[in-house]
Amino acid sequence: MTQIMRMSALYAPTLKEVPNDADIVSHQLLLRAGMMRKSATGLYSFLPLGWRVIKKIENIVRQEMDAIDAQEIMMPELQPSELWHESGRWDDYGPELMRMEDRHGHGLCLGPTHEELITDLVRNELKSYKQLPLTLYQIQSKFRDEIRPRFGLMRSREFIMKDAYSFHASQESLQQTYDDMSDAYARICERLGLDFRPVQADSGQIGGSVTCEYHALADAGEAELASCTCGWAANSEVAACLPHPTEYAETELKKIETPGVHTIAELAAFLNCPESSTVKAMVGKDAEGNPIALFVPGDHELNELKAERVIDGFALMSDEELEAAGLPKGSIGCVGLPAGVRIVADSSLQGIAHWVVGANEDGFHYVGAEQGRDFTVDVWADLCTVREGDTCPECGKPVSMCRGIEVGQVFQLGTKYSQNMGATYLDENGKEQPFIMGCYGVGVSRCMAAIVEQHSDEYGIAWPASVAPAHVCVLPLVVGDDVVQPVAERVARELAELGVEVVLDDRKERPGVKFAEADLMGWPLQIVVGKRGVANQELELKVRSTGEKSTISFDEYAEALAFAKRASKPIASFLEQAANVRMEAAVTTVRSRTK
Amino acid sequence: MTQIMRMSALYAPTLKEVPNDADIVSHQLLLRAGMMRKSATGLYSFLPLGWRVIKKIENIVRQEMDAIDAQEIMMPELQPSELWHESGRWDDYGPELMRMEDRHGHGLCLGPTHEELITDLVRNELKSYKQLPLTLYQIQSKFRDEIRPRFGLMRSREFIMKDAYSFHASQESLQQTYDDMSDAYARICERLGLDFRPVQADSGQIGGSVTCEYHALADAGEAELASCTCGWAANSEVAACLPHPTEYAETELKKIETPGVHTIAELAAFLNCPESSTVKAMVGKDAEGNPIALFVPGDHELNELKAERVIDGFALMSDEELEAAGLPKGSIGCVGLPAGVRIVADSSLQGIAHWVVGANEDGFHYVGAEQGRDFTVDVWADLCTVREGDTCPECGKPVSMCRGIEVGQVFQLGTKYSQNMGATYLDENGKEQPFIMGCYGVGVSRCMAAIVEQHSDEYGIAWPASVAPAHVCVLPLVVGDDVVQPVAERVARELAELGVEVVLDDRKERPGVKFAEADLMGWPLQIVVGKRGVANQELELKVRSTGEKSTISFDEYAEALAFAKRASKPIASFLEQAANVRMEAAVTTVRSRTK
Repeated sequence: MTQIMRMSALYAPTLKEVPNDADIVSHQLLLRAGMMRKSATGLYSFLPLGWRVIKKIENIVRQEMDAIDAQEIMMPELQPSELWHESGRWDDYGPELMRMEDRHGHGLCLGPTHEELITDLVRNELKSYKQLPLTLYQIQSKFRDEIRPRFGLMRSREFIMKDAYSFHASQESLQQTYDDMSDAYARICERLGLDFRPVQADSGQIGGSVTCEYHALADAGEAELASCTCGWAANSEVAACLPHPTEYAETELKKIETPGVHTIAELAAFLNCPESSTVKAMVGKDAEGNPIALFVPGDHELNELKAERVIDGFALMSDEELEAAGLPKGSIGCVGLPAGVRIVADSSLQGIAHWVVGANEDGFHYVGAEQGRDFTVDVWADLCTVREGDTCPECGKPVSMCRGIEVGQVFQLGTKYSQNMGATYLDENGKEQPFIMGCYGVGVSRCMAAIVEQHSDEYGIAWPASVAPAHVCVLPLVVGDDVVQPVAERVARELAELGVEVVLDDRKERPGVKFAEADLMGWPLQIVVGKRGVANQELELKVRSTGEKSTISFDEYAEALAFAKRASKPIASFLEQAANVRMEAAVTTVRSRTK
Repeated sequence: MTQIMRMSALYAPTLKEVPNDADIVSHQLLLRAGMMRKSATGLYSFLPLGWRVIKKIENIVRQEMDAIDAQEIMMPELQPSELWHESGRWDDYGPELMRMEDRHGHGLCLGPTHEELITDLVRNELKSYKQLPLTLYQIQSKFRDEIRPRFGLMRSREFIMKDAYSFHASQESLQQTYDDMSDAYARICERLGLDFRPVQADSGQIGGSVTCEYHALADAGEAELASCTCGWAANSEVAACLPHPTEYAETELKKIETPGVHTIAELAAFLNCPESSTVKAMVGKDAEGNPIALFVPGDHELNELKAERVIDGFALMSDEELEAAGLPKGSIGCVGLPAGVRIVADSSLQGIAHWVVGANEDGFHYVGAEQGRDFTVDVWADLCTVREGDTCPECGKPVSMCRGIEVGQVFQLGTKYSQNMGATYLDENGKEQPFIMGCYGVGVSRCMAAIVEQHSDEYGIAWPASVAPAHVCVLPLVVGDDVVQPVAERVARELAELGVEVVLDDRKERPGVKFAEADLMGWPLQIVVGKRGVANQELELKVRSTGEKSTISFDEYAEALAFAKRASKPIASFLEQAANVRMEAAVTTVRSRTK
């Protein structure tokens, strides 16, 4: 028997007003429904209901990790700086790493990730190829000193992560675990009720070459994703981009006066041509500070991550640096640049022979600037951020854009950490080899926000049964009488005896308040017990996700219980039996999420 | 069906040698048995087996908290300094509080405890007496910058705690929850297999007046405990102490030469009297720096915590301070002290009229110093640290001493935090009142060490079944053949199907290695499958805690399985049926720990 939660005793304070600094739906609803509270900037406390959801998410993640033979461990959250110096990340990581000193002056940090610690944990103890492959994981609080914590659980300073690490003697073995892990991540997303997409991504501060992000699709997501009906999908940070610049009619180099023209839109309007016929310039510098002019089609944006991959130590120039280099901000062009300014251009611009571009002089542009004749491009590269309608690099169809919340990422690390930290095993020939490694993260608390983004409406949250704080809310419309409340108590007890998680709203509140809060808190199934219902010997059911209502007689309910007892599949069976024909579709949905 | 753990794949590296810096049994064995590893000073990583134990301890704690209607939440580990300023503890707490600044320069600390956060969490939301009482708890990592981390999990810098907090409208309500919590703590200790004792204690940096510590009895414990057969028990830090000073025969004040006498032992030998006939002096100072001479019976030690309670701002004087005050170190006495030195003496010294005491002159002592005639005591107080044979303050019998590991503590906080932080509710008359609060902690990771201290022998750990990483270890003595291994696999599978947690030692190791490691890792029951056994159609059983061995036939084993299936009490029933008469006692023990 599960314990019945009584609303009269439960600590779940709801809010009528949307809190000021909560700007996305999940942040608003998790606060309003009494699931969590802000304790400080980017630091949240989970209240009893919210914490039940987190634990269910953790358990789903744990089951899927165990199913692929990953072994759960727990490393400290505090990490010694020595290990980060060994890996080289103490200097590389930047201000997001929360650093401190202990009372003896030794450097410590709060782990945003644990590659260093796990590598140290196994080195000298995981000695032979016979012990490989090995995958270890943990579920724990992580820390990141975000410059601007926001969006509630989406970008907080302390958050719950599952992080797994694998060790291998060959690339094939790594690939096998990487594939198993990818499958597990897909199953996790499915079980959490998430509409998700695996996408090509950047490996960022973790490192490694092969990586994939798992995104829950949601307008509130911070990531922009490009995807195609062929199955290709990528984070816009890395998505290969194939723009379609269009040729402007003029083939002779002409400097034209363009008074008041400062933007691409104004330039296109001035010339009465599409933006894709213009060329946009940005100026950056390389590691040595040498100036570089970058050119992309006018209807696209420069992707700085891509520029960084082409130009070592790339950074955009500040206004002051532009002035010092004698380059006129806003009018940069490829013709007549000062000596020593290299030209790097998006590969798509090879498709147009004559460019419309700034004239390196305020108030003037060139049309008809011809490659080879009027200027020379030093390097061609993929430089643009993908946008709706660009060509899919896989199949050539136009891609579409959407937004996503990154809930997981898998990485093939290779030997980055094992080599820096001297973590080796003995191969079949008794020769020392650095481990080939992978790492795999799921943002557990972020998953909670993603679920709410996808499973909510104007009334509140509609939890998938797999993660709901309880499966069923029993709502007596009268409390303290000897007709309605006894029936409600009996129903709650009978369901709890079957292992169904039940919350009983035994508060002396008006029915309207109870209905509103049940909808806000998002119990998958509501069972309403009222005077008239009891007189008619029936219960009223409501499936939260669809809003569909129905009634079942006491007899049908008793039959459902008996069936569930026999089948010992409590909630699915109960819902199945409880549902009449009208509810069939709804219940099928709930059932599939209950597994 | 539970998953079978295969030793061939399990990450549980054992150590043959005792690690250098591991000086107590639990620290040594947890490292040697592959349960944990040190990641840095005072920071440990739990390996798969150790983490399984921790999760089992957590779940026992969780079940007992839920059973008394405490609600689980999760607050951030990072805490803003503002809240600690409000409570006044930012300045009070000292260097054990791990402090840091975020990138914007805001003060943060890593929680050693969460009174501030929880008070902030409920203020303004827990509004009415109708919502009280309320108890919230969490299980999470805590941090303490120990000056000298040691003894493995016993005094580490990051550790796992359950901390609970309760809110009340009356002292009676607090007392009720305090009692419920105390009962729950006793049940937790019992379920963990701990021989424990609740003892009177000091409330330290948490505050409040009424408190009780739960100690697991163990020689490795850092705490000294006094207890009596009547049930009274107390930490020596606070134990009321009733020494028995004995009268020295001399009644006239005489200054005698005592060359070479520097210690109480030397003085007693010189005078041929028991140490209890001498009086020991210490010199301290109060908050204003005024000197105070403290006197205790010669066979007892001054308890500085008790002195702090009598003298505001008490501290012992350094040698330099003594010299500056003109007080001869090692010869202090109550007769002829400089003017302005107050005399504070242990109450028990009221029982002897004439004291043997220093003469405030090197090489001399007084005998026959008479209270009232030769000197005057300003304050009488309980000043001594209790020792074996002192009188029990409850029943008058002699107390005995033992050592304990503090695994839990409960506190009645009163309004310390609610008043400082303005956390109030509206009482029945609509009047604002500060919450009356309690708080309650269990050291989860420290419990693990305490269990090992109590449940181990020269061969290794002998886990109680309630927390063992697995219940049964199946040991095939041959691997890869078609006689022994198939039987072992079948036994492991059948037990796992019943919900028994099974580890199968499927490694190609010599039997001696397997036996030794099974004993080291501490599985409660070993089932050995060998060639001869299979030929005789029997299995060999060994109960780790007692070492008792027995054999059961395949038929008896099959009966046991069938019985367990019917009874659906898997492990207890299996052990019961598996045991023959000789094992009865052993099995009863194991069974009682399995509940």
